[in-house]
Amino acid sequence: MESYTVTILPENRKVRVVEGTNLMLAAFKAELNIDSSCGGQGTCGKCAVKVISGSVEDDVDGSLPQELKDEGYVLACLVKVTGNMIIEIPQFSRLTKHKVLLTGKHTKYSKENDYFTWNKMDPLTKKAFIKLKAPELYDGLNDLDRLKSVLMKEKNYKNLKISLECLGKLPNVVRNGTWEVTATITQTGKTAEIIDVEPGRSKIPAYGIAVDIGTTTVVALLIELEHGKVIDKEGTYNKQSAYGSDIISRIVYTDENENGLSLLQNAVIGTINELVDKLAIRNNLKSIDISTMVCAGNTVMTHFLMKVPATYLRLEPYIPAATKFPTVKAKEINININPAANVVTLPSVASYVGGDISAGVLATMFTHSDKLTLFIDIGTNGELVLGNSNWLVTCSCSAGPAFEGSGITCGMRAMDGAIKWIEIDRDSFEVKFEVIGNVNPMGICGSGLIYSLSEMMRAGVIDRAGKIFDNKTTNRVRIGSEGTEFVLVFADESGTGYDIVLTDGDIKNLLRAKASIFAGIRTMLQQMNLDVNDVSRVYIAGGFGNYMNIVDSISIGLLPDLPVEKFEYVGNSCIQGAMIGLLHKEALKEVQKIADKMTYIELSIGNTFMEEFISALFIPHTDIELFPSIARKEKELVYGSTNSSGR
Amino acid sequence: MESYTVTILPENRKVRVVEGTNLMLAAFKAELNIDSSCGGQGTCGKCAVKVISGSVEDDVDGSLPQELKDEGYVLACLVKVTGNMIIEIPQFSRLTKHKVLLTGKHTKYSKENDYFTWNKMDPLTKKAFIKLKAPELYDGLNDLDRLKSVLMKEKNYKNLKISLECLGKLPNVVRNGTWEVTATITQTGKTAEIIDVEPGRSKIPAYGIAVDIGTTTVVALLIELEHGKVIDKEGTYNKQSAYGSDIISRIVYTDENENGLSLLQNAVIGTINELVDKLAIRNNLKSIDISTMVCAGNTVMTHFLMKVPATYLRLEPYIPAATKFPTVKAKEINININPAANVVTLPSVASYVGGDISAGVLATMFTHSDKLTLFIDIGTNGELVLGNSNWLVTCSCSAGPAFEGSGITCGMRAMDGAIKWIEIDRDSFEVKFEVIGNVNPMGICGSGLIYSLSEMMRAGVIDRAGKIFDNKTTNRVRIGSEGTEFVLVFADESGTGYDIVLTDGDIKNLLRAKASIFAGIRTMLQQMNLDVNDVSRVYIAGGFGNYMNIVDSISIGLLPDLPVEKFEYVGNSCIQGAMIGLLHKEALKEVQKIADKMTYIELSIGNTFMEEFISALFIPHTDIELFPSIARKEKELVYGSTNSSGR
Repeated sequence: MESYTVTILPENRKVRVVEGTNLMLAAFKAELNIDSSCGGQGTCGKCAVKVISGSVEDDVDGSLPQELKDEGYVLACLVKVTGNMIIEIPQFSRLTKHKVLLTGKHTKYSKENDYFTWNKMDPLTKKAFIKLKAPELYDGLNDLDRLKSVLMKEKNYKNLKISLECLGKLPNVVRNGTWEVTATITQTGKTAEIIDVEPGRSKIPAYGIAVDIGTTTVVALLIELEHGKVIDKEGTYNKQSAYGSDIISRIVYTDENENGLSLLQNAVIGTINELVDKLAIRNNLKSIDISTMVCAGNTVMTHFLMKVPATYLRLEPYIPAATKFPTVKAKEINININPAANVVTLPSVASYVGGDISAGVLATMFTHSDKLTLFIDIGTNGELVLGNSNWLVTCSCSAGPAFEGSGITCGMRAMDGAIKWIEIDRDSFEVKFEVIGNVNPMGICGSGLIYSLSEMMRAGVIDRAGKIFDNKTTNRVRIGSEGTEFVLVFADESGTGYDIVLTDGDIKNLLRAKASIFAGIRTMLQQMNLDVNDVSRVYIAGGFGNYMNIVDSISIGLLPDLPVEKFEYVGNSCIQGAMIGLLHKEALKEVQKIADKMTYIELSIGNTFMEEFISALFIPHTDIELFPSIARKEKELVYGSTNSSGR
Repeated sequence: MESYTVTILPENRKVRVVEGTNLMLAAFKAELNIDSSCGGQGTCGKCAVKVISGSVEDDVDGSLPQELKDEGYVLACLVKVTGNMIIEIPQFSRLTKHKVLLTGKHTKYSKENDYFTWNKMDPLTKKAFIKLKAPELYDGLNDLDRLKSVLMKEKNYKNLKISLECLGKLPNVVRNGTWEVTATITQTGKTAEIIDVEPGRSKIPAYGIAVDIGTTTVVALLIELEHGKVIDKEGTYNKQSAYGSDIISRIVYTDENENGLSLLQNAVIGTINELVDKLAIRNNLKSIDISTMVCAGNTVMTHFLMKVPATYLRLEPYIPAATKFPTVKAKEINININPAANVVTLPSVASYVGGDISAGVLATMFTHSDKLTLFIDIGTNGELVLGNSNWLVTCSCSAGPAFEGSGITCGMRAMDGAIKWIEIDRDSFEVKFEVIGNVNPMGICGSGLIYSLSEMMRAGVIDRAGKIFDNKTTNRVRIGSEGTEFVLVFADESGTGYDIVLTDGDIKNLLRAKASIFAGIRTMLQQMNLDVNDVSRVYIAGGFGNYMNIVDSISIGLLPDLPVEKFEYVGNSCIQGAMIGLLHKEALKEVQKIADKMTYIELSIGNTFMEEFISALFIPHTDIELFPSIARKEKELVYGSTNSSGR
């Protein structure tokens, strides 16, 4: 096949691609990230690029607004390269540096109860310095048994194996170290394995990497294993985004493209290796110095990491190939650390409750307490866990994408240029806002969307059903191409040169998302014959959760109406769980027990989820009695109060 | 670097090599095997080729006879390619089809005592057909646990693992087979692993391959595992020969060449894959259908197979990196069978007593008997084992190469053109001979050498010290360029166009080889305070042993003077042991016990070996009383007898 050069402006970066490659993949190959939420279907309209030279077919501008079409913009995902081209990626189509939540937190509870604390550490990989007796003609024991016998005697190992790579180094290393060596020993199951040997006493401690493989972003922590110290951290976009922004569109991609599964695996492994390399270089380490990896990701991410088809996760009855994947050697899946290092993935529960959730439950440790706890992780999806030390139930609500900007006209991820907070003046309807990165606003991210709904409701811009009143005396409410819309930021103040709006349709999507989560919570409680007031603690996990305002989230009916002090942010509990797994062999057993114990509730059958969902499509809810604090405030607003002045 | 074309006649085969490659490697790359026993040092003179065109440096004809030098012959190992060349490989420099001993035998003993017989079979890999319940929304168990639970329940497996490759196939296979599947399960240690799944009931049984990795030849058996049937067999040269004919020269090669170890590993794996491919194609199998491999080879061969340096095996105190190598996946070392198949290597005892010997002891099963047994394997080296069910001692004598033709002017391996039997007329000194392949003779192989020594002695051509009498009335005894020599075949009858001779020097080398083995036997017996007459059985293993004549071997003092009925040929006991390992899980444990039990006697220190060796440099021995049957015959010859007419 012919191949052509695509030149990408303003970087003037050139990339060579084969005929027929689309511009999205070309940009991906040039390591420039273009936004997309439909996964190259030509429907989300986020991947607009301007063609400066080169021919394109007709109908490659899909859902783009007419003004962009007029300026020569096309959708990168629809344009196939058939000759040399020059294109420009505008700022508003780019994925800028994502605000990736790199770390988790100890909960108040876990800090008070020292399960898996540093003084109980038993990391997956250890280094041992030992002295061997030099062999003689009368003492001809081979190098391996000589090494093993001392390790077994002095360090209490049983059933020691050795990796092939390490055995290949052994003869020279023991002699170069004049029979003093440092052995790196790793153990995830019953059998320990020697995976590296160094001459003499090594100055380099054992390192491991914990990885959170999110659908959108991937985070890696470099951890010094002996003292359990986080040395460095790094996060980036999941390169799989080029094949679809959500898991469903990526599964479809693997089903419809012959090499799709390999491409998806390569993309996530490329992402992980990019993080590993950065961490290694920055800390003067060689890749061989990193001797274990623990990954936690949702069920689909784990399938793709291991190159296992996820086809049947999206087809009824939604069955994963596995929930616990085999521990593999790094070399088996081309992870760029010690080739014999174990790569452990934390176990999933079901197709839509993955290792990230098991990790989160492990990290928060509420399974050691008898207090009823609700764990909420709102990422690309929304997963819920309810339970205590006796039982656990879990479910998954397809809620996430809207809060990550998907399906929202001006929605975007939590990155530079995203509106994260707004306030609407009750009289003038003027809008104040704050933007991530202090630049001109380019769109609205999850927390900004929650504030918007809440403020539009309080300011009377929308009604309880989320419909925008069209009789306002403000030019911010108008009829746009998508129906009635409210202008948050006018073009002259925006970073894109276009108005930033929320439409009736956007609000409908947001209501569906929040209704889904609230209905999930209600359904789980009902299944266990419990009331929301029985919940002692609510843990909110995930990157989006971190920017979420509890009061406003309750006021729109996303979170249940409980006292604010019952809520606790736990940050990136997924990476926290992966790190605990690296540092405590017992934690790997515990996380498996957690996954085994979780009863998965399939929301699509045999319960009250659909009724709950429909009732929750109001702000905050059809049944206002479920939100007593809001009902009280509204009464105060109507009848007045000496204690409160409204907002 | 520049590369050039070498054209090889008479095949007219062309091969492209980089500048500086020697002609031996060029021929190897063209898949034409040139003989060599010095490993490219330019000393053995066996790799003569004729340069038809192209330039060569001076001094590349090394030890070649003057007549060959005059005809334009050079040593292939010394000529470095510096431009396009045309060369001819003469018949006498070629390795023709080797008479590879493809199979072992049951001993009389093992036939009578049914350890590891077919009715007790428990092969390393089995296939199991099972039916699964299809999943439903209310029964969402993942594919892997669904498969494992039935296998564990119906087939009594515990701790089932699955290979990554197999897990990748699982979701589609279970559905294509409408939840009926055939699983291939392999087990070498405690944990069984599912390494393949096929939809429905598979028509292909489980196959394994047993491999004997010899220094000179490699043999593979294709075995149907359920019924323990040998389906097919194949043998060929070890491609490592291009880097040296014996293990020492190959170790030197790896020490002196940066990529040496990789090249040696690639060569043996290339050899194994060639055999595997032939067996698979001939039997309509795909490589994935072969699901286990058991290899047995000497310690150096096992190191090279696993790419582990063997450097310290040739340096005092002669320490191997390991005696038991880790079981690896086929994909780890690029063996072309099921990538997740286990490749098991049988354990060695010491640097010069390898897995081939452990395999031989396993196969002959004398460790189940209380009768004292002597096991002799004469291959490229000579290894001895002495013992019974209570104890085992072993040693290694560097005896082999002479009997494989190395260091003997007209020596050659047991292949077409090799003289395998001779008889010398007592009066005329005329020589009758038989040649392998019924072609004109080109050299003498091991059995021919034993007959030659024995016949030259009886006919009075040589004295007890092996010196050729130079006062004979025959033109067969003469002074050649290497000293006194005896002409076995004149040029007009030979296939090379040159005389086939045995020189004083050749005979000295042969005496050293036979003395080494006999002294090894005597030393072992002395260490155990035993007499040769305590030995109940002598098992003779190996390819060379198969052609050996017991009576003549005793008469030259190679074998001890025991009744002929105590000797038993056991054929290729190495491949037999590997096959038993494939078919019986217990046998893998037993062979490890055998290796652990064997006490290695280092002949170079603390015993009587050197004295024994010097005494054994006579024919049959300095102490004729050790050979009572020969002493008796000689007396009869001198004094006459009514019972015997001499020979």
